[in-house]
Amino acid sequence: MGLRLPDTVTLVEVGLRDGLQSVGHAVSTGTKLRLLQALYAAGVRAMEVTSFVSPAAVPQFTDAEEVARAALALPELRVSALIPNLRGWERARGAGVREVTVVIGATDPFNIANVRMTVDQSLAQLAGIMDAAGAEPGVAVEVGIAVAFGCPYTGHVPLAAVRRIVDRSLELGVASVSLADTIGVATPLDVVRAVTGIRAAYPNLPLSLHLHDTRGMGLANALAALHVGVTTFDGAVGGLGGCPFAPGAAGNVATDDLNNMLVGMGISTGIDQDGLLACGGILRDEVTADLPSHTLRVFLGHTARRGDPNGASAG
Amino acid sequence: MGLRLPDTVTLVEVGLRDGLQSVGHAVSTGTKLRLLQALYAAGVRAMEVTSFVSPAAVPQFTDAEEVARAALALPELRVSALIPNLRGWERARGAGVREVTVVIGATDPFNIANVRMTVDQSLAQLAGIMDAAGAEPGVAVEVGIAVAFGCPYTGHVPLAAVRRIVDRSLELGVASVSLADTIGVATPLDVVRAVTGIRAAYPNLPLSLHLHDTRGMGLANALAALHVGVTTFDGAVGGLGGCPFAPGAAGNVATDDLNNMLVGMGISTGIDQDGLLACGGILRDEVTADLPSHTLRVFLGHTARRGDPNGASAG
Repeated sequence: MGLRLPDTVTLVEVGLRDGLQSVGHAVSTGTKLRLLQALYAAGVRAMEVTSFVSPAAVPQFTDAEEVARAALALPELRVSALIPNLRGWERARGAGVREVTVVIGATDPFNIANVRMTVDQSLAQLAGIMDAAGAEPGVAVEVGIAVAFGCPYTGHVPLAAVRRIVDRSLELGVASVSLADTIGVATPLDVVRAVTGIRAAYPNLPLSLHLHDTRGMGLANALAALHVGVTTFDGAVGGLGGCPFAPGAAGNVATDDLNNMLVGMGISTGIDQDGLLACGGILRDEVTADLPSHTLRVFLGHTARRGDPNGASAG
Repeated sequence: MGLRLPDTVTLVEVGLRDGLQSVGHAVSTGTKLRLLQALYAAGVRAMEVTSFVSPAAVPQFTDAEEVARAALALPELRVSALIPNLRGWERARGAGVREVTVVIGATDPFNIANVRMTVDQSLAQLAGIMDAAGAEPGVAVEVGIAVAFGCPYTGHVPLAAVRRIVDRSLELGVASVSLADTIGVATPLDVVRAVTGIRAAYPNLPLSLHLHDTRGMGLANALAALHVGVTTFDGAVGGLGGCPFAPGAAGNVATDDLNNMLVGMGISTGIDQDGLLACGGILRDEVTADLPSHTLRVFLGHTARRGDPNGASAG
């Protein structure tokens, strides 16, 4: 009658990619490599480490090859990277990356704003990537479906729009699918409906969730997803990746908040919470103080005022 | 196999009490009355409006009688107030308040820090209050159990400590019980265990939850509670009541975040989300800009930069 919870969850750290993409200023390769090492030291074993996007379009990832190579040198680390197109795949392959993610928005207006293509054009390009990448042994392509629950331009996104991308992606041989609540509007009920709807058609599809905490529902949505069998979640350390339109508003669900909840419920993630919070300290010192992670704020508050109890007040 | 959700939820607004108690500076009676009216206009029909605590101890509530009387004048509004002791009950009664809440911490160290009594001393005092208040027709006393999941002094709080207070309170004739996660450490699994444990002993006890969003689990805990049958939750508009030890850290779960999730899942609360967000504007202008509510930040961000889309970014 209670919650159905798994024994183990895989957290995929996307702070070095989605997080830094939203920061709004260049972050040095040295800082990225320090974060990479600290995340690895905390026990993170799956990371989306960079984006092989055109440096002209997104200068943040000019060092994609260097960061990817450093990540690939870490034993047992699953390294993935975002690729926007066939050129991105060639660069990823050149750097030795064997797991790549292609993001396709679930609506034309969002996808056009994001990658200047309609959904159908993106699916056609995915076919080209699958021709090249899918033929190589040991390469796995994931499709990340952006605005899978709601879109800033069209509002509510019907599950049929998501299913269409899932169906075509699987025809093309994609290995896994990630549903992204890019603008943080999904409710737990939306998550349950989307996951159970897709699972009904594809019981064995590796399905992960990429949640944003924009309206405070990040962990509630993760809980709902756990309850219906999802065991892989993206997260960004410190909640890095706050929405550019609202300073202080939470962006990517914080890996540290997710890990705190999961470990607190006895679910194994392999990630040490204190180690994650130490990564947050690096972010604060070298990247930005605007970190929406709740657990990080508690930690930094304690660190700043050590010896103070947890703020007792009636009720 | 999905989530079990109710059709209707009652949200009890505690911003005027718990929220303002944590603000750290005096708030004028005029502001309180404006908030009261705006909350009522938004559809809020249950409020903990003040605390009949000694004005010497908590100057914020010197105007308890005036605020209570204004609230009692609003048709169909359920008005409750916190009382720390028998003297508080006499003042509440004098103002015409017929629903009162007595807060008892689940651990001695917390309860001593909070009200300078052990748990047993608080229970003895509750007996005195029930002698006086319980005898009056139409009066309902609720016991709010603070630190019901975790305590800043003793850590994890065993369910037996909570059960002991519940058992004794019900012997004394208390009408309802609220479980407070005062320092925001409960996980959804803790909530499920506590609720199902108490429900097993008292299937018909009106049981509500008072959640804090300190570690981002506020809405996840509410979701877990909904799933096991809880239909009454406290919330503070704007997330007012941030922990004093960590500026920016979320305190009380924001009524607006809760309402957004509930209404988004088709659950009726009777509260208009835009009306609630307008209350947040009053708070920002007259009380504090440090409001952790996620939905309020999105709203204020949009208001500040109208015409800007929702911050589209890949993934």
